Amino acid sequence: MAIGANRDSGTVNIGVLGGGQLARMLALAGIPLGCRFHFLDPAPGACAAPLGEMHSAEFTDIDAVRNLAREVDIATFDFENVPAVSARAMSELRTLRPGVEALEACQDRLNEKRLVEQLGIAVPAHRSVDSRAELLEAVEDIGLPAVLKTRRLGYDGKGQAVLTTMEDLEHAWQRLAGVPLILEAFVPFAAECSVQAVRGVDGEVRFWPLIHNVHADGMLVLSRPGVFGSGLQQQAEGIARKLLDHWNYVGVLTVEFFLHNGSLLVNEIAPRVHNSGHWSIDGAATSQFENHVRAICALPLGETTLCSPSLMFNWIGTLPDRDRVMALPEAHWHDYGKAARPGRKVGHATLTARTQSQLDEHATRLADLLGGNWPRLLAGMRSCSLS
Amino acid sequence: MAIGANRDSGTVNIGVLGGGQLARMLALAGIPLGCRFHFLDPAPGACAAPLGEMHSAEFTDIDAVRNLAREVDIATFDFENVPAVSARAMSELRTLRPGVEALEACQDRLNEKRLVEQLGIAVPAHRSVDSRAELLEAVEDIGLPAVLKTRRLGYDGKGQAVLTTMEDLEHAWQRLAGVPLILEAFVPFAAECSVQAVRGVDGEVRFWPLIHNVHADGMLVLSRPGVFGSGLQQQAEGIARKLLDHWNYVGVLTVEFFLHNGSLLVNEIAPRVHNSGHWSIDGAATSQFENHVRAICALPLGETTLCSPSLMFNWIGTLPDRDRVMALPEAHWHDYGKAARPGRKVGHATLTARTQSQLDEHATRLADLLGGNWPRLLAGMRSCSLS
Repeated sequence: MAIGANRDSGTVNIGVLGGGQLARMLALAGIPLGCRFHFLDPAPGACAAPLGEMHSAEFTDIDAVRNLAREVDIATFDFENVPAVSARAMSELRTLRPGVEALEACQDRLNEKRLVEQLGIAVPAHRSVDSRAELLEAVEDIGLPAVLKTRRLGYDGKGQAVLTTMEDLEHAWQRLAGVPLILEAFVPFAAECSVQAVRGVDGEVRFWPLIHNVHADGMLVLSRPGVFGSGLQQQAEGIARKLLDHWNYVGVLTVEFFLHNGSLLVNEIAPRVHNSGHWSIDGAATSQFENHVRAICALPLGETTLCSPSLMFNWIGTLPDRDRVMALPEAHWHDYGKAARPGRKVGHATLTARTQSQLDEHATRLADLLGGNWPRLLAGMRSCSLS
Repeated sequence: MAIGANRDSGTVNIGVLGGGQLARMLALAGIPLGCRFHFLDPAPGACAAPLGEMHSAEFTDIDAVRNLAREVDIATFDFENVPAVSARAMSELRTLRPGVEALEACQDRLNEKRLVEQLGIAVPAHRSVDSRAELLEAVEDIGLPAVLKTRRLGYDGKGQAVLTTMEDLEHAWQRLAGVPLILEAFVPFAAECSVQAVRGVDGEVRFWPLIHNVHADGMLVLSRPGVFGSGLQQQAEGIARKLLDHWNYVGVLTVEFFLHNGSLLVNEIAPRVHNSGHWSIDGAATSQFENHVRAICALPLGETTLCSPSLMFNWIGTLPDRDRVMALPEAHWHDYGKAARPGRKVGHATLTARTQSQLDEHATRLADLLGGNWPRLLAGMRSCSLS
């Protein structure tokens, strides 16, 4: 029986560690399923606030975590850098889905890669770097170009430096040293992509179509599903399934890949709903948000079929002219209710269409309307080799 | 320029007179567009409450209406029986969309029918009834069977009585007399249907596909769009357009019809989003709720295309077994967060599918699973002649 189904009211109270746009979209999807949301977030204006009860506290505030736990039936999180001690405090009082093990594994790039390798999954060459000597050794092993990254707390291209020549080493070391690092081979990828899967409490797994992603300055700007062949889809599903089963995972998992020489190399794993899956709100039979809620509440999973060719444009820093974007055919607008700020994800729009060629036409119109780098980014996406 | 677009925050504050499920679904659709919601409703547990600021007050409380007005940029309503004096008080301080004229016209069955006739649109034969003598006269004119209805405040089959024989007259009179009444010819309809249209501030109008509706005990139980031919669609659109243009209407309008001898007779007009359009959340490119918000905020209207064959089941009184319904392919669950109560609309589910035959198959499974009257109701829907 699903959580909450034996209550008179039928309402399931869900606690979310994090109150950002992912928590907000979880709530928008979960409220019609009969859920109420309770968020913990230190930001006073956290954008999920209009959709539930807000607990304003630091993520390290264990008392606040316990108070949240006592209010809810089940708990989840909307970002992977929840302090492990807080996640454990939550899981002692309430079922946390996904669990602490998956969360912790994804918090450290080195541990993540080691686990992935243990499961027989390909990752880029990498070395642990804790000293200048280890950095030099790692560069000797791996060669250049390579990417030096902090093992923890990196996101959206933050906490990393690309090393092209030996001259870059010193500057990167100065900038990043002081915390555990990892050096990864730079993969001259044909494309970046991600797969999303949802796993239920009974072990059932469903996959959305593999998504093609384009980043600019380390941040996701474009995502489109359903453009890869079945061979890569199967490869991606096989990889995601190994991880899901290893962790006895419940909820949505996202795996980001580099496509290189026709194969997928795991880049990062996010134990949560993910920016690259936002298209699913408008283009899939069931969105990533609804299926995450269904999974953690022990409800049956929904279909993950692509209903319409879809393309997501991410709004970073500031929203473009809403009226002009919304005037395009089948433009779906998503404003996260945040104040504008450089580098901040403030919203997205997904274009859907009856056919791929119609979608292409509308995407060109949107990129032209947006101006700036958008026409170039869209052209870059189209020129990628996807096999 | 759209309302709110010139604000730093970009947020549009929408005031809704009414805080029921229609207000709740307006908010679920409007929040991603950058709106915040403020509801006025006398019910302490009004089900829109988790999605905005709640003003708990009687609809006749003019001070409360004015307080709401001062908090918002634009106002609308989620039911047509808002007291006209309150709607006028709102419209003196803030733009109310749709306007007071359309609202008032739809509050009185006799005035509504007279207006419709003036616009050259067909309605069932009817007579005003304010006394027992007028009732007898009306029955003589119209014949039996006929339906005696209160002119005001009727909904979901409440405030009406079917008169089949002269013996029914006395009983119906005893039950309904004391308020202005109307006698309408009973239409032996082939089917009941409704059309929904949205009109923008610039006069642009878009129509969703005509919807086939089945009622039980006066309440809507099944709705499916896109099953009528283009001739009836055009007829329905022509009728709705006359009304929209007459009122210089802004927002979503719903017109309910009887299909009789291949023609549409107007039964009722709802100046609002409507139960028969709930399928559009899951089956249309843009839902009735999103387009109502777009229209009243002076944003561009969204596409009204049918994306998937769809069929809505309405949950009245109590929710069925959520887990079993959600286990069906492409079953979209909508719980309004209300306590169970006989005759109360507590939720709905929409089935979508790739093809009409797949939808038929899933609908049969759902009706069988629900049991009770459902298989009979679904069979009744299928046996209707739709041309």
